[in-house]
Amino acid sequence: MSKEIPEKFRVGLCGLGTVGGGTLNLLADNSHEIQRRVGCPIEIVHVATRSPKPDLVEGIARSGSDPFAVANDPEVDVLVETMGGFDPAFEVVRQALANGKHVVTANKALIAEHGNELFARAKENNVSLAFESSVAGGIPIIKALREGLAANRIDWLAGIINGTGNFILSEMSAKGRQFEDVLAEAQALGYAEADPTFDVEGIDAAHKLTIMGAIAFGIPLQFERTYTEGISFITPDDIDYADELGYVIKHLGIARMTDKGVEMRVHPTLVSRSRLLANVNGVGNAVLVHGDAVGSTLYNGPGAGAMATASAVVADVIDLARQAMAGSTAPVYPPLGYLSSDTDKAVLDIEEIEAEYYLRIPAVDKVGVMARISNILQEHDISIEAVIQKEASSESVSIVILTHNAIEKELNQALSAIAALNDVVGEITRIRVEPFHANKD
Amino acid sequence: MSKEIPEKFRVGLCGLGTVGGGTLNLLADNSHEIQRRVGCPIEIVHVATRSPKPDLVEGIARSGSDPFAVANDPEVDVLVETMGGFDPAFEVVRQALANGKHVVTANKALIAEHGNELFARAKENNVSLAFESSVAGGIPIIKALREGLAANRIDWLAGIINGTGNFILSEMSAKGRQFEDVLAEAQALGYAEADPTFDVEGIDAAHKLTIMGAIAFGIPLQFERTYTEGISFITPDDIDYADELGYVIKHLGIARMTDKGVEMRVHPTLVSRSRLLANVNGVGNAVLVHGDAVGSTLYNGPGAGAMATASAVVADVIDLARQAMAGSTAPVYPPLGYLSSDTDKAVLDIEEIEAEYYLRIPAVDKVGVMARISNILQEHDISIEAVIQKEASSESVSIVILTHNAIEKELNQALSAIAALNDVVGEITRIRVEPFHANKD
Repeated sequence: MSKEIPEKFRVGLCGLGTVGGGTLNLLADNSHEIQRRVGCPIEIVHVATRSPKPDLVEGIARSGSDPFAVANDPEVDVLVETMGGFDPAFEVVRQALANGKHVVTANKALIAEHGNELFARAKENNVSLAFESSVAGGIPIIKALREGLAANRIDWLAGIINGTGNFILSEMSAKGRQFEDVLAEAQALGYAEADPTFDVEGIDAAHKLTIMGAIAFGIPLQFERTYTEGISFITPDDIDYADELGYVIKHLGIARMTDKGVEMRVHPTLVSRSRLLANVNGVGNAVLVHGDAVGSTLYNGPGAGAMATASAVVADVIDLARQAMAGSTAPVYPPLGYLSSDTDKAVLDIEEIEAEYYLRIPAVDKVGVMARISNILQEHDISIEAVIQKEASSESVSIVILTHNAIEKELNQALSAIAALNDVVGEITRIRVEPFHANKD
Repeated sequence: MSKEIPEKFRVGLCGLGTVGGGTLNLLADNSHEIQRRVGCPIEIVHVATRSPKPDLVEGIARSGSDPFAVANDPEVDVLVETMGGFDPAFEVVRQALANGKHVVTANKALIAEHGNELFARAKENNVSLAFESSVAGGIPIIKALREGLAANRIDWLAGIINGTGNFILSEMSAKGRQFEDVLAEAQALGYAEADPTFDVEGIDAAHKLTIMGAIAFGIPLQFERTYTEGISFITPDDIDYADELGYVIKHLGIARMTDKGVEMRVHPTLVSRSRLLANVNGVGNAVLVHGDAVGSTLYNGPGAGAMATASAVVADVIDLARQAMAGSTAPVYPPLGYLSSDTDKAVLDIEEIEAEYYLRIPAVDKVGVMARISNILQEHDISIEAVIQKEASSESVSIVILTHNAIEKELNQALSAIAALNDVVGEITRIRVEPFHANKD
């Protein structure tokens, strides 16, 4: 970082798609307000775009198709990466950092899967790599975790961090519709991709959770250790049973520090209807964070969209400009909030976690079946909190059980034994329940 | 600010009450995590407390009863003011700033009523005056408004920013209880002071709204221009009628930028039940902010309490320590988010605002009374959205009207005319309705 106070802060923009275009427009539209906040103009001086967009780049000093030209441009203070994907984003970002430029990226996959290496490169070069827009769109959740809650030990966080999935579950819940039916509508509305795997199987959410978990606990990014389970197996029946028990089903990313290690998991989850988080519907995102001093705080807003994401991209640029204007000689904030990662806190295997469980067991309607199931659960030290038994058809019943806290490994063993019973006539559905205890022991 | 990178960041703490004690404990309890985040220890080196607390100050280098000794201590980098009140807080803060020390304060009255002068003093001395804890307790709302949403023009914000008032309205709503009855319980529980004026008449909320509004719009702090109305006139009947119309009554602080000027007002407000904000119950706080790029984001959490407030105090100290560690030669963030205030945007008189209104008019049950009321409203260009008419007693009925958007001055004139009707037999209740339009014209 230069010690000289700049006369303007110069942006190189790579990518002019939805987010890149939004960023360009926002910097233009709000330039007066931004300058009043920063003390100097923030100016886009170089744009790289795959397909030429003459209207958008009009008036910009340099434009072309090569993002490396932006990364190597000596007149660029910060490179904004809104291309997405790994190739060439990874190399472009690495090159910009190596050239001593700050980087702002909206690329959650890049940060979650290659962040450790890129942050090390940023540190070597004494520059910032900022990524507010990569998690929960326009909600300033990175700033909250890294700065606003910096006095706390974070116990856990839980978030609705995929708008597509939340839209689908909200619609299923409000209207009793099937998953496939709502997915098709979401695709028609542009909320879901033609290949929805990334969203509905939880990969996108796992990227975001990986990033938030690393900041919360001061651990390295470990996307490969984040457990991921999608929502496609959820049925309207499950939503109804959950409702009867006082719960709503949400696709949550949960990160929790326990005595045994760190839980990092994305899966459908029963959330008590009385929680604000359970009332976040549609394409919105929300993150609930529990800190040892502050208790629970919740952050809610748009998790996607051109201008909401651009809001976070430009906020990062403003932050870097303000640091430069204050004469900072090093980044004020470590990217993940800690100056070094704690590698002693291991991410637990999913079988090691503890949770409460919702079980839906299709069984023949015979005397004694509930007793046999209860016995198996008891043998594995799993106690029952609530039971609903209803006729599913003339042949079978659905036995719905809510358990108390259990170790997942024990539960899996119990479920294997239950599945082997002659009375059980179909696939058992298992959904984790999140009671949001401050300290769960 | 010194250009040298400090070996430790030295805190002088004035006041060891609830928040001061919490701050001291939090800095001790989480010292390891905090050092991992900042890169150097944050150490309390001097404490001033009115009543001696030998247990708490054990191990601290210097302690006494004189806060000015802290403000004048050359070994103090940041003075933390948790004494409250104006005297001696104002002079202590001014002295510390004059001595080139940063100041962190939890004192919302001090900032709202004397912030303009104190910020000017901070600027003269090139130091920071931070106040995250002064608004909405542990919720990092100042950081969100000033930094996280810095790319936006803020259109409006609306917050539940007094926990006592929200507790009272939540209880009245959940259990049909009277205001006085719940207030007495809140006092017994310690949620309300023996003299509850400050909370229930909206003065505390007006302090917080004044601060948030100044940051949102880049205007000077103008507490004296903030309209304030309490909740003591709300009855269980109003809550029931609102419910029937699909609304919940909340005590909101609302700041809005309009073409005519800035609206700054604290009053009971009808909020649609479908809004997340309407579902924030109990002593919690929540702030909903609408930015032109991001849309709506909501921040929810504890608005008070020793450790929640200390969380925000220590976050400010950490921020200043991180800036010092980065070699900053000036504050990174202007206290109110803008480098200079825009004095052209005047705060409007309450009669100039536009809102929708809930009216409850006690009238005799005679033919034609509704027609006479409607005619008066129509004469003032006020159109009716919904009406409920119910027998209140054998002698009178309650006519409940929801209006469309109207100018308050027009409404007041209409209400004077309605009150003068022979059919109207008691006080008219008027509560503003907030539809949260992005741009209200």
